[in-house]
Amino acid sequence: MSASGSTSWSSAGGSAPRTVAEHAKAVASLLVATASEDVPLSEASGRVLARDLTSVVALPPFDNSAMDGYAVRAAEVAGASEASPVTLPVGADIPAGRTDVPTLEPGTAHRIMTGAPIPHGADAIVPVERTDAGTETVTISAAADAGAHVRHSGEDTAAGQVLLTAGTVLAAPQIGLAAACGSATLAVRRRPHVLVLSTGSELVAPGTPLEHGQIYESNGTMLAVAVREAGATAELLSFVPDDVDRFRAVLAEKAVAGVDLVLTSGGVSAGAYEVVKDALTGNGVEFGKVAMQPGGPQGAGRLRLDGAGVEDGVAVATLPGNPVSSLVSFEVFVRPALRAAMGHPSPERPVVSVRLDGALGSPAGRRQFRRGVLDARAGTVAEIGTAASHLIGALARADCLIDIPAEVERVEDGEPVDVWLLDA
Amino acid sequence: MSASGSTSWSSAGGSAPRTVAEHAKAVASLLVATASEDVPLSEASGRVLARDLTSVVALPPFDNSAMDGYAVRAAEVAGASEASPVTLPVGADIPAGRTDVPTLEPGTAHRIMTGAPIPHGADAIVPVERTDAGTETVTISAAADAGAHVRHSGEDTAAGQVLLTAGTVLAAPQIGLAAACGSATLAVRRRPHVLVLSTGSELVAPGTPLEHGQIYESNGTMLAVAVREAGATAELLSFVPDDVDRFRAVLAEKAVAGVDLVLTSGGVSAGAYEVVKDALTGNGVEFGKVAMQPGGPQGAGRLRLDGAGVEDGVAVATLPGNPVSSLVSFEVFVRPALRAAMGHPSPERPVVSVRLDGALGSPAGRRQFRRGVLDARAGTVAEIGTAASHLIGALARADCLIDIPAEVERVEDGEPVDVWLLDA
Repeated sequence: MSASGSTSWSSAGGSAPRTVAEHAKAVASLLVATASEDVPLSEASGRVLARDLTSVVALPPFDNSAMDGYAVRAAEVAGASEASPVTLPVGADIPAGRTDVPTLEPGTAHRIMTGAPIPHGADAIVPVERTDAGTETVTISAAADAGAHVRHSGEDTAAGQVLLTAGTVLAAPQIGLAAACGSATLAVRRRPHVLVLSTGSELVAPGTPLEHGQIYESNGTMLAVAVREAGATAELLSFVPDDVDRFRAVLAEKAVAGVDLVLTSGGVSAGAYEVVKDALTGNGVEFGKVAMQPGGPQGAGRLRLDGAGVEDGVAVATLPGNPVSSLVSFEVFVRPALRAAMGHPSPERPVVSVRLDGALGSPAGRRQFRRGVLDARAGTVAEIGTAASHLIGALARADCLIDIPAEVERVEDGEPVDVWLLDA
Repeated sequence: MSASGSTSWSSAGGSAPRTVAEHAKAVASLLVATASEDVPLSEASGRVLARDLTSVVALPPFDNSAMDGYAVRAAEVAGASEASPVTLPVGADIPAGRTDVPTLEPGTAHRIMTGAPIPHGADAIVPVERTDAGTETVTISAAADAGAHVRHSGEDTAAGQVLLTAGTVLAAPQIGLAAACGSATLAVRRRPHVLVLSTGSELVAPGTPLEHGQIYESNGTMLAVAVREAGATAELLSFVPDDVDRFRAVLAEKAVAGVDLVLTSGGVSAGAYEVVKDALTGNGVEFGKVAMQPGGPQGAGRLRLDGAGVEDGVAVATLPGNPVSSLVSFEVFVRPALRAAMGHPSPERPVVSVRLDGALGSPAGRRQFRRGVLDARAGTVAEIGTAASHLIGALARADCLIDIPAEVERVEDGEPVDVWLLDA
């Protein structure tokens, strides 16, 4: 039992630390897969497609011209050349968007624009550059193969074809495709909603003066931003009542309104009168150690809120209070869980193996996540700052986490290490 | 002079095609560097820092305890051990946030929590685990070196130190650092505002039925999303008046209201009555060919709007109308220009060299951007779809562009090619 006085992992049979993988699984299990919701195309960027998208139209929807030019019967211009041009009367003008397309009579040509429908009877387009661009008659100085410059209906996408499969992350090209196929909305996975709680009597809002002994609140702001960057929505509650019953009432109210996860940082140490700890302990949330550094003290569970109308309670993850511990814990446990809950195909950060620039010691039995700066060109990573978990300045200048396995006690200069890319 | 009848590049001395680099430079030169604006921390994610951020406080702001335990004079516990513990009276309780910290009288200890200020007179912290956790007296069973478990003021960041340099892209760690240093807002580069125009009589809004000859509007929606993904803001005008004077009046109104770029797609072909072309030609916007595929026909310039109160006119880039041409042109010319205008340190897409899976022919004299699917593990890329510029289905399943230089006419299977990573 640690000095924190918290409930330890019951599933671990006492106070044995969990591995990173065990706690990651425990946090992920708190979040259920989010449901589908329809959003306008303009709001679909970055979202995960909830269902296969099937086209109701073919792409192109009709045979159309790939060029500005003249729609002809290929056989009728088969002998055309610069030396021996063919002249045809121009029957009609077919701009893009014309819906009443006249049949091409034998021995004539229609003037046609890019994207305009191929008239019945025509089987080739002569580009305007191979003609005299006439409007009454047109003189054609090159032959055209049957099918030349004709885009056939369905050659990109057939009607009924699956355009995009569920789980696709949507960006401009996918949204453009959906629009081209006539979808005004897309079914995407709902974003999990996260309530971020910031507590601590030493905390002062940025923008106000500090007294000796006070620090600026940063974890709540930082975690809310990180939640949104992960694709979820965040609500930051900086001032929660310091009465356990009122605190639980706030949580119950938020849970009923649809909170998928409550995220706290700090407030679960040995300090007396910690409202977060007091409200959570013994009510479904378990605390204990994870064999990692930074971020050893963790908690997770479903908080029972009897009588609140939230049958299964509300999912809670408690992160340690040091800023670096807090954000590293978020990266390791919460971000992948949130992204998995919304069906993201790559919930984890990209990991690459590079050579360590320098040497690092690492405590036995604890997986380390050190802050690094990658030199992608050289294929190396250097530590920035130290292992100390309060160095947020170094964290802010890092672009990756150096992941050192629990059993490794030293990595020598030039040895390979895995790094998690934070800005990808 | 092409068949499009448009003004050709005057700077190129006629109708000679521009290189991709020349046109990219022309488009980038239309956009001026955006100014600074202050935003709340919660809205700073993804933005580019406009000025160096200097801390007004040190981090930590004061010497504080790294552990829950007891603040002592190291010399007074120098002989402590399990066998020979030292017992001291406990003077005070110092939780985090206590601002009236009492001096440590010789021969006493103060109980102290993580993050609480070190009392005057103390020079070491004994962790609670090395004590009996007493509140009246405390029995200490381990010595402590001077400075043990003390975090010194400024050891992360000194007051007055530059925390983040101008040009930094902000994310959760940087925003957390700004909060920790007391900033409630951050000075970031303003997002360029882009007016996306969608015109074309063949276009129908998604969600409504198609007649033969009509297609769904997708370029405007797609480009507006792409603009936002690039970090700018977009306003989509799907229905612009088809009268040149009214069209120019709309542009003048938007320009006065603060449009940094007008982006059109299509509407500048040989088709008669093209309002975009008619409104732009001869008024500062030049049209011509760029030696690339897809995306050959391009236009750019500052549109003069005499009497509109917009002295320098409004920046315009006209993209071709085929969806693939349009988005590839955006990637090649517009996205880097927008990101450079807001000071982004990496305006370009990341480019990697991989081996081509398959062989590709490419027309001489035109730089090709083919759609590809990367196999990062194998270090290979395969083409998806063909060179045809209307295959938006293939574009939506691509994750990169294969960049084939203008002078290359064939790339053999296994040869290296550069690819632009679209989803990074």
